[in-house]
Amino acid sequence: MLSDIEISRQAKHRPINHIAIKLGIEASELSLFGDTKAKISLDILNRLQGNVEGKLVIVTAVTPTPFGEGKTVTSIGLTQGLNAIGKCATACIRQPSMGPVFGIKGGAAGGGFAQVVPMEELNLHLTGDIHAVSSAHNLAAAAIDACLFHESRLSREEYVAQSGSDPLNIDAKQILWRRVVDHNERSLRNISVGIGDNNGPVHDSGFDITAASELMAILALSRGLKDMRRRIGRLILALDTQGHPITAEDVGVAGAMTVIMSDAIEPTLMQTLTGDPCLIHAGPFANIAHGNSSIIADKIALKLSEFVITEGGFGSDMGFEKFCNIKVRESGRAPDTAVVVATLKALKANSGLESRNDINLPDMERLVAGFANLKWHIDNVSQYGIPVVVAINRFPTDTEEELQWLKSAVAETSAFGCEVSNAFSEGASGAEALARIVVSATEQASEFRFLYPLESSLEAKLMAIAESGYGAKGIILSDEAKQQLSQIKAIGLDGLGICVAKTPLSICHDPKVKGIPKDFDLPITQFKINAGAGFITALVGKVMTMPGLGVKPGYLNIDINEQDEIVGLA
Amino acid sequence: MLSDIEISRQAKHRPINHIAIKLGIEASELSLFGDTKAKISLDILNRLQGNVEGKLVIVTAVTPTPFGEGKTVTSIGLTQGLNAIGKCATACIRQPSMGPVFGIKGGAAGGGFAQVVPMEELNLHLTGDIHAVSSAHNLAAAAIDACLFHESRLSREEYVAQSGSDPLNIDAKQILWRRVVDHNERSLRNISVGIGDNNGPVHDSGFDITAASELMAILALSRGLKDMRRRIGRLILALDTQGHPITAEDVGVAGAMTVIMSDAIEPTLMQTLTGDPCLIHAGPFANIAHGNSSIIADKIALKLSEFVITEGGFGSDMGFEKFCNIKVRESGRAPDTAVVVATLKALKANSGLESRNDINLPDMERLVAGFANLKWHIDNVSQYGIPVVVAINRFPTDTEEELQWLKSAVAETSAFGCEVSNAFSEGASGAEALARIVVSATEQASEFRFLYPLESSLEAKLMAIAESGYGAKGIILSDEAKQQLSQIKAIGLDGLGICVAKTPLSICHDPKVKGIPKDFDLPITQFKINAGAGFITALVGKVMTMPGLGVKPGYLNIDINEQDEIVGLA
Repeated sequence: MLSDIEISRQAKHRPINHIAIKLGIEASELSLFGDTKAKISLDILNRLQGNVEGKLVIVTAVTPTPFGEGKTVTSIGLTQGLNAIGKCATACIRQPSMGPVFGIKGGAAGGGFAQVVPMEELNLHLTGDIHAVSSAHNLAAAAIDACLFHESRLSREEYVAQSGSDPLNIDAKQILWRRVVDHNERSLRNISVGIGDNNGPVHDSGFDITAASELMAILALSRGLKDMRRRIGRLILALDTQGHPITAEDVGVAGAMTVIMSDAIEPTLMQTLTGDPCLIHAGPFANIAHGNSSIIADKIALKLSEFVITEGGFGSDMGFEKFCNIKVRESGRAPDTAVVVATLKALKANSGLESRNDINLPDMERLVAGFANLKWHIDNVSQYGIPVVVAINRFPTDTEEELQWLKSAVAETSAFGCEVSNAFSEGASGAEALARIVVSATEQASEFRFLYPLESSLEAKLMAIAESGYGAKGIILSDEAKQQLSQIKAIGLDGLGICVAKTPLSICHDPKVKGIPKDFDLPITQFKINAGAGFITALVGKVMTMPGLGVKPGYLNIDINEQDEIVGLA
Repeated sequence: MLSDIEISRQAKHRPINHIAIKLGIEASELSLFGDTKAKISLDILNRLQGNVEGKLVIVTAVTPTPFGEGKTVTSIGLTQGLNAIGKCATACIRQPSMGPVFGIKGGAAGGGFAQVVPMEELNLHLTGDIHAVSSAHNLAAAAIDACLFHESRLSREEYVAQSGSDPLNIDAKQILWRRVVDHNERSLRNISVGIGDNNGPVHDSGFDITAASELMAILALSRGLKDMRRRIGRLILALDTQGHPITAEDVGVAGAMTVIMSDAIEPTLMQTLTGDPCLIHAGPFANIAHGNSSIIADKIALKLSEFVITEGGFGSDMGFEKFCNIKVRESGRAPDTAVVVATLKALKANSGLESRNDINLPDMERLVAGFANLKWHIDNVSQYGIPVVVAINRFPTDTEEELQWLKSAVAETSAFGCEVSNAFSEGASGAEALARIVVSATEQASEFRFLYPLESSLEAKLMAIAESGYGAKGIILSDEAKQQLSQIKAIGLDGLGICVAKTPLSICHDPKVKGIPKDFDLPITQFKINAGAGFITALVGKVMTMPGLGVKPGYLNIDINEQDEIVGLA
């Protein structure tokens, strides 16, 4: 079979404005970026106000494994399949970060014959949104440090005379705003800044990957430019010497940050290999952030399509939980159906049993044991009150016997249905059966429920996620977390929702525990206030907000060839 | 008079593809970015190979002052004026950095009725080239630090087994590649990285502004994608424990860096207020880098236009010198005429005489004294063997008497001619007289000369710039510079040209010395190898490669208004 980039390059893309016209976007609402990408003006939401919204389908998965479950392949394939059976369907996905693109596995455009194309444009700069987030984020870091510098070198009188405003009395040990870069950059995790003559007080800082920026969460959760401006104003950059929060508004940098992100608020239209519309917008990771594409893109797509397929990062304990308890709360729009993606390989790897042979070979014992993980995710999703469809993303080595067993096992669960997806190798036609059962699922009556009411205390909300969301016995707060909790309550932010940052490789906090973890307490090491995004992040165990490059990183394979084409993007 | 952004917003822009068609660019060679910007494919150079090139005009200025000399206003105005008198003229300018945009003075789109529009798009992300440079630069930094990390934690055998290649034996104290960010970020000038468990050996690093990245120079000097690939491969990132250079090729990251910059190599087409073509490409500063827009943009514009107007940053001792001795050498294309921009205010401020009253009031004494600075720049430019036209950028407060005196004084110099430009307040019609004299100048016979042959020793080349380029008696090397010079010779790079990094505020190294500095030696504090760009940077005195934000920074005024429009960009 051809590589992903070869399939992408051989495909005949339609001009992107044809895709837009077919979807019902007017020329005046479109800014072309070449003939493969276009940004959509938010003005469209006014024009479409009266349109009935389509059905919203959220794609999630079993606990991820190193083999790749193909969640994006399934999301894009399902979109292709729905269009193939005559439905108007749009995919809404996140913009890939360049960290993984150059670091490990390559891009996030789907794969095989279920891809967003051209994949190299999706995986690299796209239309610049991630760069805009990095730039706005780092302007705030420069601003707070410049204030600190001038406050430290000037007397109060001088400061007032020269700046025209009162000093903020920033506590150099309480600068909460770090920096971001869209790379895997281990050596920047913890840095010391302000070194040297006249470069400001020396203090600790560090870089997170841009996908972990609170601005990325804000981009994904904003309902419009003014909403984004208000959220940016609320960002807490530091504490003053009295322990009071200093916001981006206080520093006077919120307007400029919004200006830097004023194009980024428009979603980007691309297409699948079969010319179906795909909106790409915002890219928060699902382990260290809330892991879902934007509310704005979903909204536009829902007004234009019968079906909107979106996905939450990692397993249903991660991106899907945050989709329900964070994104839905902000958007006011519950999903109509969830699709849980599983593969035979992933179930075997999640069995907790040692591999006796090649994971591609049949192994009913491991499959049966690993099924428990899928069942857990089906039940987890079901508790939100929506129909669940299981999509088995088929690999060439899968045997009919194993697939049949898995389908019959799923039939015994609370899932509405189950289908094998051949989207990777066959494209749209390989996902038609899945598409049909998803259509049926969205026609079921459903009653979406949150896992917790916002009115509960932060501890109660966290307990709800730990117990109902992961199956934990309870939570354990570190001393630091306890102290931060008091601080959050003192500031009056305990009414916010919770975004858990934890490993995606297990349902619990320990990546080594496979299958269904039992009899554990969830250790909360730290809290982080995200007043702009509108949630409190709870860090569980050791969570890296900046990945590192391995000893054999992805960039080694990437180059231009004799024909000036990009090679090596997976 | 209206503000720059108000003028820009009230202007009726033509669709950018109309500008392209008029200029002779085919639709297939154009990638639209909305209807105001478009990237031009380098394929156009093959198609236009046989075209006769137009005349190349380089715009420079007297020694800059805080009042602003209006070099970009004059460049854009001259382009407008040339088109108004029936010539086909294109402006080629640099992409503005967001550092100054949010830090100090605002953008670099020209001003008044001589602007590139829409100015906010030019001044913010444009088509993402600066972001691409930052991203490629920081990937290299991440790569070298990741190698260092893995080399430090693994035995040689483990490293070879896991990576499939030999360790580079990086010397942690000799990592020469810093990081970049496109902001004024004082606190990141000197940082310590790799702090904490398993984040790699702790070592010194720091951030420069992206305009100072060697990749920015490479973007400006490359003649095509393959040339850029080769230059990136040659970048020296670090030294090994034996003192040998480790290049981006050695690290295996040069291909990926090129891929990140593969769209950036295409210049961006915009338009002036009167719908004349303007190519924006690359943005090296002229004090800490070579200060000129790209060779590729000039080349395309020369194939399509009768006149191409480009500019070198700051005074003729800075960007113009580097235009001649660096850019012309790489492009093989000498300028036909130079324009030296002067204002009455700038000459008064360059007089070295104390101001007794408002600089806007007539003051013949200071004007006469300050004229020496203009004469110096005329003579400086003349030595390169090309005709010089003086453009007096008129301010509303200028008196006819002073302007007449200045014109008659210029008439006594080696300048070919002199005209007042009213482009700021009148647009195209205000620059017609200047346009006519520039046309005449380009019809003169000229014989371009470099200031030094590349074959000279580095000391001799530096001496030539110091003596003939600044009027110094000689040069003084610091001990560090001497040691670096031996190292450069040992590596075999003494055949490269020289890029001087010095203050733009005086012809010499001391910003306080106004007028024509005399009787001084040029102190060289450091050398920096730029093997990819193809020059050695000589740092003169204290040169900051990262600006800082002031106590009342520009971002304070920038916001979105009730109509979601950007306000406060100057």
